Amino acid sequence: MSSSFGRLFVVTTFGESHGPAVGVVVDGMPPGIRVTAADIQRELDRRRPGQSALTTQRQEADQAVVLSGIFEDVSLGTPIAIVVHNTDARSKDYGPLKDVFRPGHADYSYVAKYGVRDHRGGGRSSGRETVGRVAAGALAKVALATVGVRIVGGTVQVADVRAERRDWDEVEKNPVRCPDAAAAERMAAVIAAARDEKDSVGGVVEVTALGVPAGWGDPTMEKLDAALGAAMLSIPATKGVEIGGGFAMTTLRGSQSNDAFDGTRYTTNYAGGISGGISNGADVVVRVAVRPATSIGKPQTAATASGGTTTIEIGGRHDPCICPRVVPVAESMMAIVLMNAWLRQRALRGAEK
Amino acid sequence: MSSSFGRLFVVTTFGESHGPAVGVVVDGMPPGIRVTAADIQRELDRRRPGQSALTTQRQEADQAVVLSGIFEDVSLGTPIAIVVHNTDARSKDYGPLKDVFRPGHADYSYVAKYGVRDHRGGGRSSGRETVGRVAAGALAKVALATVGVRIVGGTVQVADVRAERRDWDEVEKNPVRCPDAAAAERMAAVIAAARDEKDSVGGVVEVTALGVPAGWGDPTMEKLDAALGAAMLSIPATKGVEIGGGFAMTTLRGSQSNDAFDGTRYTTNYAGGISGGISNGADVVVRVAVRPATSIGKPQTAATASGGTTTIEIGGRHDPCICPRVVPVAESMMAIVLMNAWLRQRALRGAEK
Amino acid sequence: MSSSFGRLFVVTTFGESHGPAVGVVVDGMPPGIRVTAADIQRELDRRRPGQSALTTQRQEADQAVVLSGIFEDVSLGTPIAIVVHNTDARSKDYGPLKDVFRPGHADYSYVAKYGVRDHRGGGRSSGRETVGRVAAGALAKVALATVGVRIVGGTVQVADVRAERRDWDEVEKNPVRCPDAAAAERMAAVIAAARDEKDSVGGVVEVTALGVPAGWGDPTMEKLDAALGAAMLSIPATKGVEIGGGFAMTTLRGSQSNDAFDGTRYTTNYAGGISGGISNGADVVVRVAVRPATSIGKPQTAATASGGTTTIEIGGRHDPCICPRVVPVAESMMAIVLMNAWLRQRALRGAEK
Amino acid sequence: MSSSFGRLFVVTTFGESHGPAVGVVVDGMPPGIRVTAADIQRELDRRRPGQSALTTQRQEADQAVVLSGIFEDVSLGTPIAIVVHNTDARSKDYGPLKDVFRPGHADYSYVAKYGVRDHRGGGRSSGRETVGRVAAGALAKVALATVGVRIVGGTVQVADVRAERRDWDEVEKNPVRCPDAAAAERMAAVIAAARDEKDSVGGVVEVTALGVPAGWGDPTMEKLDAALGAAMLSIPATKGVEIGGGFAMTTLRGSQSNDAFDGTRYTTNYAGGISGGISNGADVVVRVAVRPATSIGKPQTAATASGGTTTIEIGGRHDPCICPRVVPVAESMMAIVLMNAWLRQRALRGAEK
Repeated sequence: MSSSFGRLFVVTTFGESHGPAVGVVVDGMPPGIRVTAADIQRELDRRRPGQSALTTQRQEADQAVVLSGIFEDVSLGTPIAIVVHNTDARSKDYGPLKDVFRPGHADYSYVAKYGVRDHRGGGRSSGRETVGRVAAGALAKVALATVGVRIVGGTVQVADVRAERRDWDEVEKNPVRCPDAAAAERMAAVIAAARDEKDSVGGVVEVTALGVPAGWGDPTMEKLDAALGAAMLSIPATKGVEIGGGFAMTTLRGSQSNDAFDGTRYTTNYAGGISGGISNGADVVVRVAVRPATSIGKPQTAATASGGTTTIEIGGRHDPCICPRVVPVAESMMAIVLMNAWLRQRALRGAEK
Repeated sequence: MSSSFGRLFVVTTFGESHGPAVGVVVDGMPPGIRVTAADIQRELDRRRPGQSALTTQRQEADQAVVLSGIFEDVSLGTPIAIVVHNTDARSKDYGPLKDVFRPGHADYSYVAKYGVRDHRGGGRSSGRETVGRVAAGALAKVALATVGVRIVGGTVQVADVRAERRDWDEVEKNPVRCPDAAAAERMAAVIAAARDEKDSVGGVVEVTALGVPAGWGDPTMEKLDAALGAAMLSIPATKGVEIGGGFAMTTLRGSQSNDAFDGTRYTTNYAGGISGGISNGADVVVRVAVRPATSIGKPQTAATASGGTTTIEIGGRHDPCICPRVVPVAESMMAIVLMNAWLRQRALRGAEK
Repeated sequence: MSSSFGRLFVVTTFGESHGPAVGVVVDGMPPGIRVTAADIQRELDRRRPGQSALTTQRQEADQAVVLSGIFEDVSLGTPIAIVVHNTDARSKDYGPLKDVFRPGHADYSYVAKYGVRDHRGGGRSSGRETVGRVAAGALAKVALATVGVRIVGGTVQVADVRAERRDWDEVEKNPVRCPDAAAAERMAAVIAAARDEKDSVGGVVEVTALGVPAGWGDPTMEKLDAALGAAMLSIPATKGVEIGGGFAMTTLRGSQSNDAFDGTRYTTNYAGGISGGISNGADVVVRVAVRPATSIGKPQTAATASGGTTTIEIGGRHDPCICPRVVPVAESMMAIVLMNAWLRQRALRGAEK
Repeated sequence: MSSSFGRLFVVTTFGESHGPAVGVVVDGMPPGIRVTAADIQRELDRRRPGQSALTTQRQEADQAVVLSGIFEDVSLGTPIAIVVHNTDARSKDYGPLKDVFRPGHADYSYVAKYGVRDHRGGGRSSGRETVGRVAAGALAKVALATVGVRIVGGTVQVADVRAERRDWDEVEKNPVRCPDAAAAERMAAVIAAARDEKDSVGGVVEVTALGVPAGWGDPTMEKLDAALGAAMLSIPATKGVEIGGGFAMTTLRGSQSNDAFDGTRYTTNYAGGISGGISNGADVVVRVAVRPATSIGKPQTAATASGGTTTIEIGGRHDPCICPRVVPVAESMMAIVLMNAWLRQRALRGAEK
């Protein structure tokens, strides 16, 4: 089950970066929901490469083909298979890297695990695997909208530059996908500088779910926090996640971090909308630490399969900062988590909650 | 499955804080491993209340009773059920709280989810649920030791005080479970001050696995990072988790955060021992953000079930800082994650890897 | 997960025949359902040994102790742990059998699988494991009754004697648990004869669910037929299962076995209430082939752990025909299957269906 | 998870009968195994329609396209996605059936479950879904062969005609796939007669696994019997399953049905190679009851969506007996079950067993 996420809304991705295709099977989409090819394509377009000068120049149309589960623009309740063919796979770029373990990449750990690997473009470890997640997330978003849940997200930090505002309508207006127009400009400059120095930078992506009713999530092993943690840390290049107040709460006192609640609304949200693993009616807020992209042009020393080391300069076409493209992926994973929580609560209580 | 963790080494906890017992069933312990009652009790003793003046004064012997799966001190490969009876459950303390939603607690979200709840001591949402996790973790540690994997952990931050050293032998010598003796004293003072002011403080717990071979973990949805993220964020009162460099990496460049590796050893460990979701042979390092304990004696405004608000001062017996007791729980959850990764790798490749 | 059944109503049993206890954890019981200790005990009493001269004379009170998940006779929605202590475990009876692989038993296959085993009374392979299933089944029955589903069952064949009638009210009135009083007498005679010859006989148990609405079950891999097949063949000593017309349909033509349906009711039920894996509104009918009990007093040649053979006469206290005691177990497994199907349909569609 | 089977070798099918494609994702194929497109196509060719005058005349090339998980004819250990496009989908044939619930089919139960359906050719309930199972089974067979396990199967009964011999080399030589050449001729005559009368017949398919070592399978809820029962009863049109002696054992005595075993070999195999849910080293033998095909040309009364009834004569292109085409499907499901049992045993014990 290493490639599946969820129990009731089950998302299974497949595909290698330079194989024939990547894709996803979504099992558990409720029937009778109107969903069109455009709903899926719109989200894939947010994730695809080549959107701006700040992202990789690999050219992929990332055209989704729906093979099953949707009939006359309505979900059937049966598995929805979606395939995206790889078209701009320049496998030759990777010939020289066949026996080199690129620093920061999973080349070595894959060989340790499997004994074999498709070395072209990272194979299965490529960020291209997230195409399937975004297609699945698009379905989840459409389904969640039927019960008033909406998911927004953006890049809230790049290197040392932090967004001060959360103007979600701003996100699609700048290439960084930052909800703060002023910060976005400074972030773009930082990314461009790193790119020009053949280096990369990290950042933080924040995702928020609006309209989640109280009562979703599970109380112990599958707390909503835990499910979100797994979801976010399953995204390539993420190395940290925090809910609500997160690490900042570790320096507070309980009298500060216990959210004020009058039975109807919260005036603070240190809990990030989740109490005891269960949604409490406030916005569900998650932040994800995104490491600097591992593929950089600068010369690096790398180990080789034969036991020695070599110096490499990774050419290819890479993202100097992957935050802008992580945004739709993180939104998708949150949508998938919430779909599961929603359906599970329906199983537990029956009526819509 | 809300109360289960893992697929191959499956840990299912049960029990309410003031019900007859808490416990766990562990399904998937490999057969033929020598394990004694003392192995389990030793870990439970690290978690139990009343260990020092810095923890709750609730008195629970937390005596483990093994009901199955171990015969003549050897694991049978069948489910191991372990029960710990609740003995010092002063349910009367909670009568007045029956219709009050304690700030920061899960009282309200539980009612939203289930419609009913056992209000005594938080019922299922109590930290007492972690007794079962620690018993299961004890089994996991014993099993992992047979392949040379050892797990260590400690409190590395309390409020603003941070440990500078990682002297794991120091941990059990101070009540904070800090791997830095000097920092431990300052942490203890901070905790005592909060306690005296009827308040609480948060902190950070760090857990490290030594001796994990390269190749454990899964590459996409069930990355080792993701499994650890879920495991840690399933522990009560945790609101953040980071692997290796974590959030600190977000301000670095790729040329800094790509770990140097000569094919044999790493000289840096920003990846926290995990590349592409798979262990890479370096130490696996996780840090968990622990919020300030939510039960405090200070007067707080709380919502009531009848729709109004009231002022409460939570008496009872509570921890002013739960980090010292989270340490064995976090270690246990890491052990459970690694057991699953180990068994899964055996399934994939057969021979020990 | 070898000891768990179900995804949403998850039943995990534990315990060896001659260990301290057997029991079960049920995770997924909907909250707010009234359930008493008597509801559980009544079903356990139907399964326990020593009920009549036709069953084993092992004396076990099989007293259920509920450790969690039920508070003031109402389900909390949290895991319900139930323990039954073993009291009449005469382990000494089994000393001589420590190194003998009893014919028809799982002694040899257990050693092949695990390398070790608790040889006393079959250990985990004992029918005593089904205590936990029946306790879980009792909960499932109580929950299903809230939506009008009732499960009945009985012994419909012993050796060559077949029941001609399905008078479910008759079942608890005769020791064979046969729904045909006249056949019951002949069955009892056949069982007594086998017992007196230190031998055993097999038979068929039939279980029916009344009141299942159309739409429960899944269409492909988890057809309701498949779930029932797994459930029934997970009961010790079962070697066949059939739904509705079952094997008898193999000699019919489609024009005979296509059930007549006018949109409201079925006048035949070859499909056993399941079409395409999904309930169709008719009674759900399952029959289970129960092999003759493997423990017999007659001399048998048996292999030994040292590689030779020996002659054994199994003394102990055994059932000459286990059908009467399989009835409550089969009913329980059907109830567990239907609970999962019900909750899953709620997840899929929301409102009660 | 309704469309997935297995925990470690996870098979997820997708696709409707008259949609763009059917297919499968197999997650858990061990890496490093040589597997070619021909290995997959050979099995699909055994299942595809139009093979003889005894099967449906729908013309589908059923050409498999591998999208991932295999690189240079070697399995990568990553998900293997296989797609088969539907080419001869005459959807117009089904227009008149849009609002009719065909007798014996799942039309009504699907509407009850989902509220919507793809009515063309049964949509998801079509036997065409099994294309994905057979592709997955081909992978499983290749993998099992590396440890000496081989799976054979055939039609052993059609209506009242039973095979007396089990000459597995004979199976592919006759259109009935019967392991008894003489019986095959009589079976073919029976099928042709039913076809000419616009009717259909049922039968029994038997599948055997050779070379399974002792120790595979689980002891309680996931007994090998149970897994095989679920696997077989998940195949469309099956309504019964038996292991080894099956229903015939119900009329025997224990002294007859306890298999004779000298520690090395069995001289009888009433247990069908499975003791206590675990393989015992003998051949694993399963028989499946296949009902008469539900699509028949004879006039039948059928309920309609509007609440009335109508008379239908199902034209289209259908199988008068589906046993010959069930054979590769049943073999595939057994292979999938055994793959899971094998990998699980590796997880439990490490070394090959």
